[in-house]
Amino acid sequence: MDREPKLLEADEVGPAAVVNHKAADKLRAGHLWVYRTDVEELIPALGAVAMPAGGLITLMDARRIPFGSAIYSEASVIAARKVSAEPKIHRGEYLEDVVTRVRAALALRTPMLTDGSTDSVRLIFSEADDLPGIVADRYRNLVVLQLLTQGTAQDDMREVLARELAVEGVDVIVERPDPRIRELEKLPAPPAEPLFVREGHAGPAKTEFTLNGLKLGFDANAGQKTGAFLDQRMNYAAAAAYAHGEALDICTYQGGFALHMARVCTHVTGVDASRSALETAEQNLERNRAQMKAEVEWVEADAFELLRAYDAEKRQFDTIVLDPPAFAKTKRAAEGAMRGYKEMNLRALRMLRPGGTLITCSCSHHVSREEFTATVAEAAADSGRHVRMLETRGAALDHPEVLTLPETAYLKCLILRVD
Amino acid sequence: MDREPKLLEADEVGPAAVVNHKAADKLRAGHLWVYRTDVEELIPALGAVAMPAGGLITLMDARRIPFGSAIYSEASVIAARKVSAEPKIHRGEYLEDVVTRVRAALALRTPMLTDGSTDSVRLIFSEADDLPGIVADRYRNLVVLQLLTQGTAQDDMREVLARELAVEGVDVIVERPDPRIRELEKLPAPPAEPLFVREGHAGPAKTEFTLNGLKLGFDANAGQKTGAFLDQRMNYAAAAAYAHGEALDICTYQGGFALHMARVCTHVTGVDASRSALETAEQNLERNRAQMKAEVEWVEADAFELLRAYDAEKRQFDTIVLDPPAFAKTKRAAEGAMRGYKEMNLRALRMLRPGGTLITCSCSHHVSREEFTATVAEAAADSGRHVRMLETRGAALDHPEVLTLPETAYLKCLILRVD
Repeated sequence: MDREPKLLEADEVGPAAVVNHKAADKLRAGHLWVYRTDVEELIPALGAVAMPAGGLITLMDARRIPFGSAIYSEASVIAARKVSAEPKIHRGEYLEDVVTRVRAALALRTPMLTDGSTDSVRLIFSEADDLPGIVADRYRNLVVLQLLTQGTAQDDMREVLARELAVEGVDVIVERPDPRIRELEKLPAPPAEPLFVREGHAGPAKTEFTLNGLKLGFDANAGQKTGAFLDQRMNYAAAAAYAHGEALDICTYQGGFALHMARVCTHVTGVDASRSALETAEQNLERNRAQMKAEVEWVEADAFELLRAYDAEKRQFDTIVLDPPAFAKTKRAAEGAMRGYKEMNLRALRMLRPGGTLITCSCSHHVSREEFTATVAEAAADSGRHVRMLETRGAALDHPEVLTLPETAYLKCLILRVD
Repeated sequence: MDREPKLLEADEVGPAAVVNHKAADKLRAGHLWVYRTDVEELIPALGAVAMPAGGLITLMDARRIPFGSAIYSEASVIAARKVSAEPKIHRGEYLEDVVTRVRAALALRTPMLTDGSTDSVRLIFSEADDLPGIVADRYRNLVVLQLLTQGTAQDDMREVLARELAVEGVDVIVERPDPRIRELEKLPAPPAEPLFVREGHAGPAKTEFTLNGLKLGFDANAGQKTGAFLDQRMNYAAAAAYAHGEALDICTYQGGFALHMARVCTHVTGVDASRSALETAEQNLERNRAQMKAEVEWVEADAFELLRAYDAEKRQFDTIVLDPPAFAKTKRAAEGAMRGYKEMNLRALRMLRPGGTLITCSCSHHVSREEFTATVAEAAADSGRHVRMLETRGAALDHPEVLTLPETAYLKCLILRVD
């Protein structure tokens, strides 16, 4: 991808960011993020006093050789996200590239939507689809869009995406960005109205969709993140292949793992701290009552407190799922997260009957697969149990990891047999 | 598992190994190997002058507190393999434990043998089944046993295992240890005759078995390792789910990946340096001709030379499998292995058409999943291609990893999409 080095004329330099040698090497090799700490100099456009929030800038290495274009953000620790290997591209060219990449992203998901196991996938996954700041999830006929940077949360982008995503079968497109990221990026509130409603459709942001043969409800006006956890789709199915007997699902949210296990187990306890999530889980259970073999019970509780209490009572299970929310929201929080993972896994391991199955997940960006596996191994050692790893898994295929951007690898799922 | 510390009387100390503090901690926490470099003192039995090759010894920590029993080896860098948390167990007790553990190992595999996808699995996988030095593979009606330490390659063990493994459906049990390990461990030649032949069975160590619906031949008197690669069983199936168009299978051995891909691709080239392996591959192809969609071609060549030549000719493929033998046989060789992996993966990435699939494996014990992924990421960066990881996989379920014994995690398989 390297082009002939070419210096820009003085009057066509800005807006630009000069990044240090190491960062330039990484960006040339496929990374897409420009951390603010790697920026050596910011050069506004000729005549301008500031960098353009959400605007396109040219990336230059320490020798001032331009090597790409990026979207600038004035708020995030990621000062800019690379969108092209061409310097000085204009917004029109950028939007054209977006169209090409959105079509490639949809093409990648087509086989997943047509193999009969699901009607719902993540259509666009930001950097993983070379589309930084754009996330789109499809729940059967409803698309939930997230525009998560100053450069993407703009009306011209909404127009382009509404057009490209309104494919056959999609009736409604709504925008629901993650509130935490919206705050970090200092983004304006998104439009309250849907970006697209198919003619003749009533247009509510509510739907029912199918995941591994289970019917699930989705309401874009409620729910964490963009809703149910599509990234766990294939892990739900894998868990069901091992689950047996009495099962415990810690941090069940809207019942994802619990309902999959309830098709094969005798008893399932789903635990979550959120009452509204459990209410949705109960509705999901009702929708699939005919398929259910297990007695299912929902418990509103803090995961740690409940595990401590069950451990003290010497409760025993045959299958346990641990799928906590990201403990480590920042790199600094990773150490505390490790303690959390270790405690949770140790208690679960102790509560499993011989021949039991532990399905243990981490979705913390700041905890690597190696660190997570090592922490679970520590818990295994402390538990005195014979623990074997049967599978090491990641997110579903619609959430690919970019090899040259390790930050895109966030979901780890280990399947363990405990004797 | 910790017991009340208890010192042994002087006349009941030996034979024993005193290990350093760090090693004792690891062994108490679930590790099974005593490296010779961690041994502080070897104490022969009272009246004996040497440690018992292949005999049971007691493990003691630096304070001389006994914490388990192990099988001693005078030849290997692994001086002893822990087999019990009880000190001073006798051979009879050890063999009783073996029976219990073999039954547990068989029970773990029963669901795999009855789900219809295979009639062949690894029945016993050494440390992973708490049975150090014992490996047994089942190919339909034939069991191939490996006794790989001085403590297991003994006639009383053969007797016990022949009895336990002669379950319904098994007609012949033969012993075929890995010649390299046999040499390292200074083991005598195994019996040439089968350990078991079912009455009425002709008894040749040759059979035909089924893997993911493919019929494959197996001859215990030929072949590397114990034969076909059962550990890749689930990765073969996964590869076939992604494979398309023109496929290249590097280090195809007896055609494992190639034949799975030939059911869905238009053309498959299987490459191996061993002519006899390719002859078996061709016989396997003939056995499954009716299922084959692709034109299949076998090429006898060195993997690196062939990849260099194809790269120079600008050959293009839609799917490439890299499944080389373990480059790094020792920790010291790991650096050279990394260079090998990088070159191989870089050339493969360059030869893939946009939308192509790379299935890349490493079975080197001395290369961790993290190191392998990082090396493939380097190749991705150098290739200038947009590379996304769709799946990160390990060995099939009959080759579990012991979390507290990271050395049991050896097989890594990444599935990548290349644009």
